[in-house]
Amino acid sequence: MANDGGQVRRNKQVKLKEYVKGFPKESDLYVTSDSTIELRVPDGSPEGAILVKNLYLSCDPYMRNRLGESKYAESPSYLLDAPISGFGVSKVVDSKHPNFKIDDLLWSSRIQWEEYSVITKPEGFFKIQHTDVPLSYYTGILGMPGITAYFGFHDICSPKKGEYVFISAASGAVGQLVGQFAKLTGCYVVGSAGSKEKVELLKTKFGFDDAFNYKEVNDLDATLKRFFPEGIDIYFENVGGKMLDAVLLNMRVHGRIAVCGMISQYNLDRPEPVYNLATVIYKRVRLAGFVSFDFFSRYSELLDAVLPYIREKKINYLEDVAEGLDSGPAALVGLFSGRNIGKQVVAVAHE
Amino acid sequence: MANDGGQVRRNKQVKLKEYVKGFPKESDLYVTSDSTIELRVPDGSPEGAILVKNLYLSCDPYMRNRLGESKYAESPSYLLDAPISGFGVSKVVDSKHPNFKIDDLLWSSRIQWEEYSVITKPEGFFKIQHTDVPLSYYTGILGMPGITAYFGFHDICSPKKGEYVFISAASGAVGQLVGQFAKLTGCYVVGSAGSKEKVELLKTKFGFDDAFNYKEVNDLDATLKRFFPEGIDIYFENVGGKMLDAVLLNMRVHGRIAVCGMISQYNLDRPEPVYNLATVIYKRVRLAGFVSFDFFSRYSELLDAVLPYIREKKINYLEDVAEGLDSGPAALVGLFSGRNIGKQVVAVAHE
Repeated sequence: MANDGGQVRRNKQVKLKEYVKGFPKESDLYVTSDSTIELRVPDGSPEGAILVKNLYLSCDPYMRNRLGESKYAESPSYLLDAPISGFGVSKVVDSKHPNFKIDDLLWSSRIQWEEYSVITKPEGFFKIQHTDVPLSYYTGILGMPGITAYFGFHDICSPKKGEYVFISAASGAVGQLVGQFAKLTGCYVVGSAGSKEKVELLKTKFGFDDAFNYKEVNDLDATLKRFFPEGIDIYFENVGGKMLDAVLLNMRVHGRIAVCGMISQYNLDRPEPVYNLATVIYKRVRLAGFVSFDFFSRYSELLDAVLPYIREKKINYLEDVAEGLDSGPAALVGLFSGRNIGKQVVAVAHE
Repeated sequence: MANDGGQVRRNKQVKLKEYVKGFPKESDLYVTSDSTIELRVPDGSPEGAILVKNLYLSCDPYMRNRLGESKYAESPSYLLDAPISGFGVSKVVDSKHPNFKIDDLLWSSRIQWEEYSVITKPEGFFKIQHTDVPLSYYTGILGMPGITAYFGFHDICSPKKGEYVFISAASGAVGQLVGQFAKLTGCYVVGSAGSKEKVELLKTKFGFDDAFNYKEVNDLDATLKRFFPEGIDIYFENVGGKMLDAVLLNMRVHGRIAVCGMISQYNLDRPEPVYNLATVIYKRVRLAGFVSFDFFSRYSELLDAVLPYIREKKINYLEDVAEGLDSGPAALVGLFSGRNIGKQVVAVAHE
């Protein structure tokens, strides 16, 4: 059912100017209104094509790799002078797809940073069924970061009640959720973050047992020993480098380390060294990398578990919403200096 | 049933002179014949004491830590000017223990480097039931290294037929067994070792598909890419440092790394850095440390599996036997420069 009255309008876009080296800068990206788009699936598009209005864009650490010359075939570089893309929420404006109707709400990893997009093959687009929660949550607690936190913690870490859990980058999209899942499991939870304000949030809003500002710490090993006199059973790794090296000195026997990301390393030419890996032998530590995609097929488990938590206010979820595509470059770049407080989202439009 | 005719005789011992720093030297140890011992359990010993004649002593990499100022409570420093100890095989000469009779053969982690020992509480001594194989095998293929290789490979690595397996320190006590277990599982197996002779052994005697001398390699990463164009599914880690860093660049998706030891690191003041840990994320690599003690309760499984392999000559097992306690210090120290070819054993006496 095509929308034949497709008007032509401006289509603002965020594009990559050159491949990022070191810390990303706002000037590595640019916003342009040069393009126009007709608000209907173009004639001659393949059956199944849709046209979407993009509502919420997700800023995620993994995008750093795509902004540069990618080291991973699994996550290729963005094209220069083309809209970047990532997780986000969109609304169907026109559809030649049997399963997607006008006004359907979708989330996907393939949302382009522009106002409207034609998607010729909408594979990997999930229809949003529950709209009693904010739509932007599908870029976070009910999207990729939620999947990462929920399955990363429960499946990769195999937590048990009473265990000692440490989370780095703990106020971020994933960390804040892992901490709360760990508390709901009956664990003792400490988080690290990069400002006094974030540390306060961890202890008040997110219910962590304790928290510290890693930027104010000279001796990470001694700090961890103070917060975990019995050692750490589970480390949810979001940062890498020096923090991981200190954590390795403080793991308990049969401890688990889930390596979700290493944001502190993404902007370095050469990653920071890790010296203390031999500690995994006597401590029988298991360190496992994982990616959220492996758990997408179990998305309904996340909804079943987490929607009630949200509705019953058993979980707090904090977003840092930047308004408008013009604020996109600053929002994305800010992620790597920790400027955001909570999950960084760009609201292109609210409906 | 005490042996009342206990004669008094010399009791040669190998003792630690001072705590080792850096690479162990023969002069860090000394052999002394100052002690004598009466060949019966001393009067007044607690019920359960035994007196043993020590036959075979095992030289194992973990002993490096005990020769120095130990970093691990689980594996404390040896006492200075006292016999060192380790795995070995002994024969009961006198017994006040209901389960151990004169002439029983035992293996244990608590064998002292001396000709005879009084063991007041013989906990952790396993009675040797099968004597149709060489007794020294109970320091290796049928002892701790066998447990390490068998359960480390089958339990920690979860191998599947057709997978690509890489083993470092591959001609050593553990490596030679892991390689043969991997071949018996139907894997493709490559090993690294430190001499041309060892590389030949891997390919001929132990049936590895291929092998290389890491000392002749400038670029470990490129070398691994040549031997594993498809990447590595399983890495059995015995050395650490640069080798681990290169392996991390070559792991396949869902690869497993079993960290058995890191012998290249034991003599360094500061371990070598590892830079490439972030690769575990996209590749979903699992790295797990383990110790053989966790599998001692399943020792009978090893016997059931491996005794038939030995008897049917489906496994080759190579020992490097140094004769006499006097050769003990050189044998032990030689382990850390790779002087041994195969499992290093010291034969104190053959029966």
